[in-house]
Amino acid sequence: MSARRRGLQVDLGERSYAIELGHGRWSEIGDAVARATGASRAVLVTSPEVGRRYAPRLMKSLRASGLQPKRIDVPDRDANKTLAAVARIYEGLLDAKADRSTAVVALGGGVIGDMVGFAAATFLRGIPFVQVPTTLLSMVDASVGGKTGVNLKRGKNLVGAFHQPSLVWVDLETLQSLPTRQRSAGMAEMIKHAAIWDRDHFRELEEGVDAALALDPAVLLASVRRSCEIKAEVVSRDERESGLRMLLNFGHTVGHAVESLGHYRRLHGECVAIGMVFAARRSEELGHAPEGTGARLEGLLRRACLPTNLPDYPRKAYLDALRVDKKRRDSKIRFVVLEGIGRASTIPLTPAEIVPSRRSRREL
Amino acid sequence: MSARRRGLQVDLGERSYAIELGHGRWSEIGDAVARATGASRAVLVTSPEVGRRYAPRLMKSLRASGLQPKRIDVPDRDANKTLAAVARIYEGLLDAKADRSTAVVALGGGVIGDMVGFAAATFLRGIPFVQVPTTLLSMVDASVGGKTGVNLKRGKNLVGAFHQPSLVWVDLETLQSLPTRQRSAGMAEMIKHAAIWDRDHFRELEEGVDAALALDPAVLLASVRRSCEIKAEVVSRDERESGLRMLLNFGHTVGHAVESLGHYRRLHGECVAIGMVFAARRSEELGHAPEGTGARLEGLLRRACLPTNLPDYPRKAYLDALRVDKKRRDSKIRFVVLEGIGRASTIPLTPAEIVPSRRSRREL
Repeated sequence: MSARRRGLQVDLGERSYAIELGHGRWSEIGDAVARATGASRAVLVTSPEVGRRYAPRLMKSLRASGLQPKRIDVPDRDANKTLAAVARIYEGLLDAKADRSTAVVALGGGVIGDMVGFAAATFLRGIPFVQVPTTLLSMVDASVGGKTGVNLKRGKNLVGAFHQPSLVWVDLETLQSLPTRQRSAGMAEMIKHAAIWDRDHFRELEEGVDAALALDPAVLLASVRRSCEIKAEVVSRDERESGLRMLLNFGHTVGHAVESLGHYRRLHGECVAIGMVFAARRSEELGHAPEGTGARLEGLLRRACLPTNLPDYPRKAYLDALRVDKKRRDSKIRFVVLEGIGRASTIPLTPAEIVPSRRSRREL
Repeated sequence: MSARRRGLQVDLGERSYAIELGHGRWSEIGDAVARATGASRAVLVTSPEVGRRYAPRLMKSLRASGLQPKRIDVPDRDANKTLAAVARIYEGLLDAKADRSTAVVALGGGVIGDMVGFAAATFLRGIPFVQVPTTLLSMVDASVGGKTGVNLKRGKNLVGAFHQPSLVWVDLETLQSLPTRQRSAGMAEMIKHAAIWDRDHFRELEEGVDAALALDPAVLLASVRRSCEIKAEVVSRDERESGLRMLLNFGHTVGHAVESLGHYRRLHGECVAIGMVFAARRSEELGHAPEGTGARLEGLLRRACLPTNLPDYPRKAYLDALRVDKKRRDSKIRFVVLEGIGRASTIPLTPAEIVPSRRSRREL
């Protein structure tokens, strides 16, 4: 298989858009942005570090397509994903005289995508938005679903909007500068997609995980593409079957608790890996998944160099963390269980049912 | 005609909602909120002054319906319609442990509705929202269309989101405490709706303007209802015919300029009145409207105690103000012209074409 550009369509009616995948195709992006957005101008928002590597080629392409691009730099640490940072992006958009025919292009990882997406969703009540994700995680996760947002002091992603991009442009070249720990974190979400949706793809990942982490172009392109496709399938169907999208929270309920209890020192993907193994074992205990499901999932995650053991915080700390999870509806949480590799569903559980008493936990 | 509750439906497919109109029906609101939102709890957001008058009865009704209401007070001056105020509403929602099954009820005028609506649109990426408008302007204008937003230092309503309420509850009793200048300002938007859409209703307003301003219940109910209905017709059709909604900007292009040049000391409705007369006369000059259109519109606005003369700021100031108007698409502005009383359309004009040179202006 060649590593040429291969796209897929996210089917959302009027808000459908393409995800283009390729390798080192920077010169084509300007025309693609102009075509997808109909914009007459563009503003690129990136972080100083990502911008230093990739912005010059991107700006050149936008310029060549007549989009008179301006550039705004914002820090991309999660601690900066705040309303204050969004306010600075608004100021930059005003400086650039952005209007509804201006496309906002976000170049960077999930933090950049989330907060630039939120700024695009809310500036003038919404202007066109293009994502150029530069981390494996943002390629397979944030590039589909239209979720944008920022953190408040009291919790992550508590503020946001749904705003579909007009185009997602994935260039795998950007992964070469991605630290291996970040590659693994992205792989966690890819494994999640396979685990909840596609048994065959799970097997492909078991075969290709080492090659993908070593950035083998063909393996990487095929598995990133399939991973985006799975998320797109789930998200598209959710427009009809409300709730299906909840499956994407597999591993996230406890994962978010681990993330918050560790004061966000672990990567999101690492916490999701821990949360998935916890949820898979809990699925077995509750009689939803056949024995061995958790072990098989854990095996793949370990090969992807991801942590899988639940950190030893007190049970009360876990319960408190679960109670502020924004997905809770009243006191029950819709907890995602595996029914086996490749199939998932949700069941309503209280925090105390999700994290059973210390004695049961020790048995896990 | 009796002054009993009479509702109408805003037809927006899945996002359709009812506008209920009545007088002193506070005890019914709790059940209506529960039914329309499906929420199990409610948070009321209001200003201290409006809250002092009406919140106790509203809270009582919400409580009687089992919605365990909490109350948040925020100042309702336009200068407070900022991201910082929205951040304070988020904090209040967190204190109240609001989640996606919590309805946010906005009790107040346009400032409260806009910023509480924006908070509801973006908290947890959107939670249910009910509007209880307490000014004539917010009843006929903000209650339909789903526009929410806040100001930035450099301009009004530059940030926002579309978020349809689940219910709008109009109680005409609240108008009794509304200063007469505010009543007139609300009447300006009602006159606008008639001017762009419904010649017969324009005639009704010519007959009933004095009774409506004196808060005659039957006349007021009928004309508020028709005014909401016109806006609902325009907004509903805009889902198919993109651009129709622009007609609602009649009088607003120059109106916003007057508002901003006067540092927001004039009321919005007063500026719209000035802008409408300017636009109607310009429509005549440009050959779109028959002679006398501007004079007839001006006559009705004057009877509603509204200003109609363009303030004497330098032409350059007007041109600069028009250039930051967020509705501009590149350099041309889609200017709304009347084609006569009850019919409007848009034409693309540059700021210089909208505000011709001083000599021509003096002739107006």
